[in-house]
Amino acid sequence: MNYKTIEGSVAAPLGFMAAGVHCGIRRNRSKKDLALIAADKECNAAALYTQNKVKGAPITVTKAHLENGKARAVICNSGNANTCNADGIDIANAMCEAVGSALNISAQDIIVASTGVIGQPLPLEPITNAIPGLAAALSKSGDNDAVEAIMTTDTRNKEIAVSFKLGKSECRVGGIAKGSGMINPNMATMLCFITTDVDIDSEVLHTALRECCATTFNMVSIDGDTSTNDMVSIMASGLAGNKRITSKGVDYEDFKAGLEAVMTHLAREVARDGEGATKLVECCVYGAADGETARIVAKTVVSSSLFKAAMFGSDANWGRVLCAVGYAPAQVDVTKVDVSFESAGGEILVCKDGAGVEFSEEVARNVLVRDEVKVKIGLNSGNHTAMAWGCDLTYDYVKINGDYRT
Amino acid sequence: MNYKTIEGSVAAPLGFMAAGVHCGIRRNRSKKDLALIAADKECNAAALYTQNKVKGAPITVTKAHLENGKARAVICNSGNANTCNADGIDIANAMCEAVGSALNISAQDIIVASTGVIGQPLPLEPITNAIPGLAAALSKSGDNDAVEAIMTTDTRNKEIAVSFKLGKSECRVGGIAKGSGMINPNMATMLCFITTDVDIDSEVLHTALRECCATTFNMVSIDGDTSTNDMVSIMASGLAGNKRITSKGVDYEDFKAGLEAVMTHLAREVARDGEGATKLVECCVYGAADGETARIVAKTVVSSSLFKAAMFGSDANWGRVLCAVGYAPAQVDVTKVDVSFESAGGEILVCKDGAGVEFSEEVARNVLVRDEVKVKIGLNSGNHTAMAWGCDLTYDYVKINGDYRT
Repeated sequence: MNYKTIEGSVAAPLGFMAAGVHCGIRRNRSKKDLALIAADKECNAAALYTQNKVKGAPITVTKAHLENGKARAVICNSGNANTCNADGIDIANAMCEAVGSALNISAQDIIVASTGVIGQPLPLEPITNAIPGLAAALSKSGDNDAVEAIMTTDTRNKEIAVSFKLGKSECRVGGIAKGSGMINPNMATMLCFITTDVDIDSEVLHTALRECCATTFNMVSIDGDTSTNDMVSIMASGLAGNKRITSKGVDYEDFKAGLEAVMTHLAREVARDGEGATKLVECCVYGAADGETARIVAKTVVSSSLFKAAMFGSDANWGRVLCAVGYAPAQVDVTKVDVSFESAGGEILVCKDGAGVEFSEEVARNVLVRDEVKVKIGLNSGNHTAMAWGCDLTYDYVKINGDYRT
Repeated sequence: MNYKTIEGSVAAPLGFMAAGVHCGIRRNRSKKDLALIAADKECNAAALYTQNKVKGAPITVTKAHLENGKARAVICNSGNANTCNADGIDIANAMCEAVGSALNISAQDIIVASTGVIGQPLPLEPITNAIPGLAAALSKSGDNDAVEAIMTTDTRNKEIAVSFKLGKSECRVGGIAKGSGMINPNMATMLCFITTDVDIDSEVLHTALRECCATTFNMVSIDGDTSTNDMVSIMASGLAGNKRITSKGVDYEDFKAGLEAVMTHLAREVARDGEGATKLVECCVYGAADGETARIVAKTVVSSSLFKAAMFGSDANWGRVLCAVGYAPAQVDVTKVDVSFESAGGEILVCKDGAGVEFSEEVARNVLVRDEVKVKIGLNSGNHTAMAWGCDLTYDYVKINGDYRT
């Protein structure tokens, strides 16, 4: 399917505006900490949530609000996760009510999210004080501020929008995300808000979101920790004018391709910007007997602390790759495994049939010092593939997380 | 049961001697790299192995040699894992044959182990050249050299011996271990060699080893990586003169208490000396509905990268503890969870019923800056307990593993 990248992110699709401000949850006045995404009309909507049994209060509230598959807006603060607080649900509800009043919509139609420190009371006043101004600031270019406002230890904005045709209708999907730490493969995802102007039933939308998540955000690992607050949501305004998608078919597949492109981009950006990371590590498993085996092996390798530390050192220590393949919970014939590294610096085979091959350390180093490195693992047992994304393990990961709260 | 710590380690039990030398696998001449433990007579023996599907050649050879439950000696080199090499099995067999010749025993009665880099050919000549001298150096005090020779990135010796009575017979158990990196909970263990002079059937010995491993080495996590070469072995000379243990009963339990004391000490020392660690972190879960839940929660918390980084920073970030409890694959009511920290600096409650309580950051810091810190997690759902051991995640872990091969 043909899609192209366009300007902007969540406000790029028809019917959406966004804004972001500093409301005072964070002490640093130059860091925005409150984001709003609003739709002109009621949207079909869906979301996926963390699988952690400890769930942030915003997750509980959002789940209830999305039971009818409808939403009008997203409110999200950074700096405080509003999790493990006795009054968390009340605070999350109050945030929705304040947005509802400001936008003259039902509080039940609002997706609420929080990200930051767990277990510290979230003060409501800075948020409710800021919401009228935030609502007034909504604009088509406000998604630049919104993406900044949801960041925590992120060092880069993560945003994208694409457009594509369904029939004769030009359609758009846009998204923003925040990631960095506490991200692991077995979950819905970190925070990601997606909008589209495609006309689509909310159940079909949910299915598309779930299918795309399986090959994108669920294949990202930064540190193996599963956050309590993670969520990916999508709102569809239906303003593109396409024939409504009510089931799987050609239009569904075309829409899904656009959605997957958005989510793949954001997932890769989240991995690239993993806490302390100096490089994006992409793990490509091919020749697997089935898709599940490919996914498990890819995720296990990209999650190995020892492999990640080797990537930081640009060390072609393929033994650690093979070791991780060996302890991955999947059926693999380790005597058939090939391993190579690839980057803008070239490609080099380092392991064939489960044993080392001679290679030039100099060439390998030139492949590995790049800021985007691919480890390719051939299982030689079938034709299934999977991709997973992660990053290297660095001094800065330890520094950032050794003293996060202060 | 009463046991007391005694001098020495694997040569402390009757009927054992040990030695360690530098043979040349490592370039650094001051680092011993070849260890030998030998029994005066045939021993009943048992071992547990890595669960990684990629298994070092020495694992394969040792498994075959222990099929009859008998062994006479252990040979172990450090500096090279003899894994993923085409000639690995031949090399491991040749090591056994050389020891067999030097000691005039069958090569089939030898336990062989290797630890170090994966996928680099292990040169046989330095080893076979050194074995006659190594055999000649065997002595009751040689376990000091043996423990040094099995170390890789370890910074401390890990050794212990205990004595206890079975009936009127004084009995002994001694052990040495090496650990550091690539250690995770779901496996047999890192390298650990244990000896005892207790008279015990090899199947019963195997059972005792397995039961003790479940509560000791299998509860250690350094970095979540499962090595290809891990092994814990035990040889029983039977020279203590006790009534032979042929089944479970009082004597079995008394022996097991001594064995567990040895293995607990070594497991804790392995955790304390995790690669780059500045402190031992002990996780004590109590009030669990069943033992499996307690073990899973304890291991999950002690394995969390974010929690470990917080421990490095002496940061009482209990939200990360709760988060890890929440994603542990077990049934836990997270609204009932209490968390406190304890050390020589005191004890402080930081979370009650799944929510934060007010506490003094100053007092918490004074608890957490110590070199041995306990995190206590109450599940308030039963009376089962478990302990797990790990360490903090530090700059030095990254440094050690970023460039291990060079």
